[in-house]
Formats: sequence, structure tokens, C-alpha cells
Amino acid sequence: MTPIDRRSMLTGAGFAGLAAALPDDVLGQALSGNAIPVVNTGSPTDPRPKHHIRFGVIGLDHNHIYSMTAAVIRGGGELVAFFAADPKQVADFQQRFPQAKLARSEAEIIEDSSLQLIAGAPIPDLRAPLGIRAMKAGKDFLGDKPAITSLEQLADVRAAIKETGRTFAIMYSERLEVPAAVKAGELIAQGAIGRVIQTINIAPHLVSPASRPDWFWDKARYGGILTDIGSHQAEQFLFFTGSRRARVVAAQTGNVNHPDRPLFEDFGDMTMSGDGGTGYLRVDWFTPNGLGSWGDGRLFVLGTEGYIELRKYADPTGKPGGNHLFVVDGKSARYLDCSKVYLPFGAQFVTDIVERTQIAQDQEQALLAAELVLTAQKNATRPLMA
Amino acid sequence: MTPIDRRSMLTGAGFAGLAAALPDDVLGQALSGNAIPVVNTGSPTDPRPKHHIRFGVIGLDHNHIYSMTAAVIRGGGELVAFFAADPKQVADFQQRFPQAKLARSEAEIIEDSSLQLIAGAPIPDLRAPLGIRAMKAGKDFLGDKPAITSLEQLADVRAAIKETGRTFAIMYSERLEVPAAVKAGELIAQGAIGRVIQTINIAPHLVSPASRPDWFWDKARYGGILTDIGSHQAEQFLFFTGSRRARVVAAQTGNVNHPDRPLFEDFGDMTMSGDGGTGYLRVDWFTPNGLGSWGDGRLFVLGTEGYIELRKYADPTGKPGGNHLFVVDGKSARYLDCSKVYLPFGAQFVTDIVERTQIAQDQEQALLAAELVLTAQKNATRPLMA
Repeated sequence: MTPIDRRSMLTGAGFAGLAAALPDDVLGQALSGNAIPVVNTGSPTDPRPKHHIRFGVIGLDHNHIYSMTAAVIRGGGELVAFFAADPKQVADFQQRFPQAKLARSEAEIIEDSSLQLIAGAPIPDLRAPLGIRAMKAGKDFLGDKPAITSLEQLADVRAAIKETGRTFAIMYSERLEVPAAVKAGELIAQGAIGRVIQTINIAPHLVSPASRPDWFWDKARYGGILTDIGSHQAEQFLFFTGSRRARVVAAQTGNVNHPDRPLFEDFGDMTMSGDGGTGYLRVDWFTPNGLGSWGDGRLFVLGTEGYIELRKYADPTGKPGGNHLFVVDGKSARYLDCSKVYLPFGAQFVTDIVERTQIAQDQEQALLAAELVLTAQKNATRPLMA
Repeated sequence: MTPIDRRSMLTGAGFAGLAAALPDDVLGQALSGNAIPVVNTGSPTDPRPKHHIRFGVIGLDHNHIYSMTAAVIRGGGELVAFFAADPKQVADFQQRFPQAKLARSEAEIIEDSSLQLIAGAPIPDLRAPLGIRAMKAGKDFLGDKPAITSLEQLADVRAAIKETGRTFAIMYSERLEVPAAVKAGELIAQGAIGRVIQTINIAPHLVSPASRPDWFWDKARYGGILTDIGSHQAEQFLFFTGSRRARVVAAQTGNVNHPDRPLFEDFGDMTMSGDGGTGYLRVDWFTPNGLGSWGDGRLFVLGTEGYIELRKYADPTGKPGGNHLFVVDGKSARYLDCSKVYLPFGAQFVTDIVERTQIAQDQEQALLAAELVLTAQKNATRPLMA
């Protein structure tokens, strides 16, 4: 079975549009980690990238790195070199990106003055230190999420940004690489639901134990369930409410059904309040196999004049595939199939690197999302049942 | 246009099953309060009630009283007498329930020793005192929700129950009178999704200002948005998680878009944690007119082996009507149309009255739901945006 077949099988839909629709979790998490992720290579109708940059990749511990790399390439990035220590990770990455040279060390990439960007997905607690090294070497950084696993790391990242003037970007793929989420952002910016009041984000994930490395089960390495998965949802809360300031109202984390993995968290939720609206998120590792997708991710955005619902990756017993957007306003309820919506992140991010703008991602908002989940993670209470 | 036509028009579906599916909010809230609510008179296939009781009705300020009365009648109750002061309320009620005698006073009903039950829907802050008077006169009481609007009233109700040995029941219609919610309870009891971990309840409502009496806008009378609407969702959290103990983790209430109604709350949310699971609820008055229903009420019940979603009153751009149940487990995703599911509350409640059982409603759980929302309401913070 090819990776494409596997992906199609899992989602119950054809391939078209799916590479973009599904974060590559689907392969690493649902398929025992043996398949090399399919990547979104863009569509002939996509706008031509405005700029060209050279970049390197360091750390392949999560296969999010495949979609991150593909996004930068689509946006005008030239993948020059990569480094990882694990031979299997190296061989797989080379198969998907044969144009890239395997560097002899991390330092060879960091010290290569021809590179403008380093993208990385090492084990989560190693990401912020890597990004800081990259910035201190004059490069911008794009880290897989969670890119920061402690408040101390966050302070170090902020200090390094200030010192170097470089960018520490975080690939919040559940918004940036999900066409339905991109479309929701457009509709909201156009005022389709009035002023945003609240977001609710429900983000179940498939645990797929056989495919997981040791660090997956160790909160000290991945930062905890809110830090890890929840960072996506916190970022969506900030983005869709347009909040520049926000605080954690409450948070819970727990291990309610994995007694054999004492350092793992399988459930988390948190409430946030920002100057642009309020938000709630739930994250968990309880996707049942009968779904046919890695997670029934939902986003509800409530506005003063209507609301939007996304069924991002599945519509149980309903429409095939993902990227389903429902909008209800004062006049009607409408459905939009967003599977073919263009993903602008890559091209915007390359432009940001060259022009020193923050269109693809607002630096402060990206770090505020991390701050929210790190604060929530630190102060979370346990559910009574756990 | 008849009330039936109006209801069909509003829901975009035929009448069958709808009287049960839709709390009668739909008429009072969506139709300027001018139509007399349609009631669910049951189906010829319903089980025959086991017992007969005589009951009276006091207070018609919310037309929930129509579905409450109908439920007791379906369950074997004989409506003997009713009392209200407002001539329009009296005339409407007589038209729907011509068998009932208009009493000359509330006291005439409370002192009628032939009656076993009093059902009431006066203005919310008058409900608990009415229930206490009924219990002290040796009768059981069924109050519209919110039946209790302060922690002081709750203490008084608990004391009166202890003193009299009578029942203070609360009509949490969004579970007890919604066939899809009844079905969800059956499936969960059968273990369809394993052990329940969490409930998320999203409960938007249509504000329909023209149809609202003065007390609707005054928190002192209706108790606040969590006390009022939220009591439904808190009760569902307790019931579906099977919690006997629970606490409020966090709560927010606010008036984010009704500046002309300073004593009104249009948004609320809360997180609860119980010994059987945890729960989140959002309540609001932002249903947009384009929905074609009074609210896109959703319930997500997450279990260790699967999850259930209810689209209680609408399925935007999807299936007509309400009572849609989706269940995903380890094997498949399935859809169940629950519109014809039998509603057992009425018959169970009449049996409880006669046999002194608590099958229709557990007394302590019903009051714990009230305690949760009253506590949350008291301690709620404001969203930063409000």
C-alpha cells in the first residue's frame, strides 16, 4: 500500500486536497509510523511566490517536519541541507526531499551563512534551544509546535528575539495548514459573523501507541497535553478573536485512562479570556478507530451576527473528507467545501523573512499562544475523576 | 397560520416528533409570544401509564408550563385546576387545556387535599417559594427551570424537603423532553462509549426581544444566564457523567452585546468537575435568524471507547428537524434519528409520586445541578471583552 492509499483509506476520501487538509499526524500517528508522509506540493493555480530563500532543516523527530518543509518550498524556499542523527529518519526524509544534502552536523547548517531560515522538529523540549541557536547565528527559525515547553524557555526565546532581531515562528498547522481554517479567517475578517465573541475548539487525537517514541509518553519532553496539542487551539483562539492580550481563566489536565503510562496526559481543557473575545479548548487522546480519521476536530466561532463551525478532518456519517465549513448568519445557513482553498502561509512566511514583515504570523501573538498554554499547563487542576 | 404551521416553518421539518423535540421556547421566543404552544400528547404506541394522580398548575409566566403539563398528563396525571393572574395567560391555557378549572386563588389549589402535585412556572424567583408552600401543604412540586434562583432559596428548598418528605422536581426539559438526549442516556448506560470522561454542551438561544416580558431582562428575577439556561446543561453534565459530587472549576458571565439591557446577561460559560467526569457548557443569546430554529444545541459526550454528538434542535444545512444522534466507537460511525424515541419522564414521575421512588429524577442530583449553576453564577468572572 502506498502512502497515498493509506491516507485515502484512513480518511474515507480521495487524495485530492487531503495532503493539505490533514496534518501529517495521520501517518505517523495512525499508521505505526512506517509510511513516509505525503506532502502538499501545491496546485498549478497557486499564486507564484514573490521571493526565494535558502533554508535548512534540523531535527526530524516529528513528521510534522514534512508539511513544514513542503510549506516553505511552496512559498519559494529552496531546501539546501538537513541534519538528523537517526538513520531511518534520514532515509525517509531523503526519499521525500531528494534535493537536500545531508549535513555532517547541526553546526554545519547553523553556520552556513547562505541560509536564511532553519526549520526544525526535534523532540519538543529541544526546539526552543535550537531556535535560539539559529537566531544567534543570524537566521530565522520555524519550529514545529510545541516549539516551547516551559516558561523559562519562553523567556529565553523572547530575549533572543530582542537581542538578534530574528523571527521565532511556530507552525500552528491546525490553522495555518488547514484550508477550512484559512477560509474561516477570511470570512471573519470580512465581518461574516459580526464581532467575534468566543471560540470553542474540540481537538481529539488518535493515540496509536505502537507508533510512538518514548518521549511521546513523557510530559517532561513534550511539555504536557495543553503545551503540546493545546498550543494549536490557543493560537486559534487568539487569531479568531483578534486578541492581543489574554489570560487563562481555568485549566485541567489529567491521565484518566492510561494507567500504564504515568507520565502521560490524555485529557486537558482550558478557558481563556482575551481583549477580543473568550475561548475554550479541549484536547484529548481518545479518537476511536471507527472515525476513520485521526481526529474529529471542531471549531465553533460565535459572533454577534452569526457563527461558523468547522469540521476540519471528518464529518461523522456525513460528507467525505475534511475541510467542511458551516456558516449561519441572520439570513441563512450555508455550507462551504474548503478543500481547495489556497494555503498562503508558506509564501507569506518567505515574504516575511525577506521583507521583515509579520504577515504569515504575528510574532507576539504566536508567543502569547505559547504563554497561555504554558501557564495553563503549570497551574492546571486535575479532574476529580482522574 | 396555526401554531403547528408556525412550528413547522420554524424548524424546516414536518410536525411529527417535533412537539417533543422542541422545548416550547420556540414559540414564546421565536414567534413574539402570540401563539399558544403545541404540546406533545404522546403516541398510541407509548406504554400505558401505571398510575393516576390529580394535579394543579400555578403560574404561567413561562410557556414551558405547557410541555410540563402535557408531560404529566401523558404520564397519568389528571389536570384538575390552575391559577394565574394574567387574563391573557389564563385564556391561552384554557384553550389548550379546557379540562382544567380556573381556581379563584393560588391558595385554593394549594389547599385542595385531593391534589398530589403542583406544577408551576411563575417568574423564576417565585418558583422555589411556591414549591416550598406546595411541599408544606403535603404535595410534590414540579418547577420550571430555573426553579431556584439563589443559594438561599436552595437552602430553604433542601430544608423543606427534609421537613416534609416531599419532592421538589425541576423540569430540565433539554434532557428530559428531548428524545435524542433520552436515547443518549440509554446508549451510555449500555456502555456504548465506555466510561464517560467529559460532556461539552453548547446552548445558544434566540433572544427575540419583542416577545420578552420585563423580568426576562432583569438578572434579579431570572437569576442570571448560568442559573437560568445553564441549569439544563449542568444537569446533563451530572446525569451523563453519573456524578454524585461535583464542583465548579471556573465560570464567566457577561453582557457583551446588549448595552441597552444593562441587567441582562447574553453570554456565560462554565467548567465543572465531578466524580464521574468533567464538563463544560456555554450558554448565550446569539442564535442568528438564519438558523431556522431557536438554537443549535449541541452535546458532545466523550467516553473512553467512543463519543456521542447530539444536534438537538437543528443540523445546519444537513438533516431536517432535530433529534440527531451521532455515535462513533471503535468500529464505526453511526447516525440515529431519535425523533420518535419515547419520552419516559411523565410516566416515571407520576410513578415516583405514587411509589415514593426517584426514577424520573434523582432529587439530590437535580438540586446539585442548581447548586453548581448558582455557585458559578455568584463567582463568575467577566470576559475581558465585556
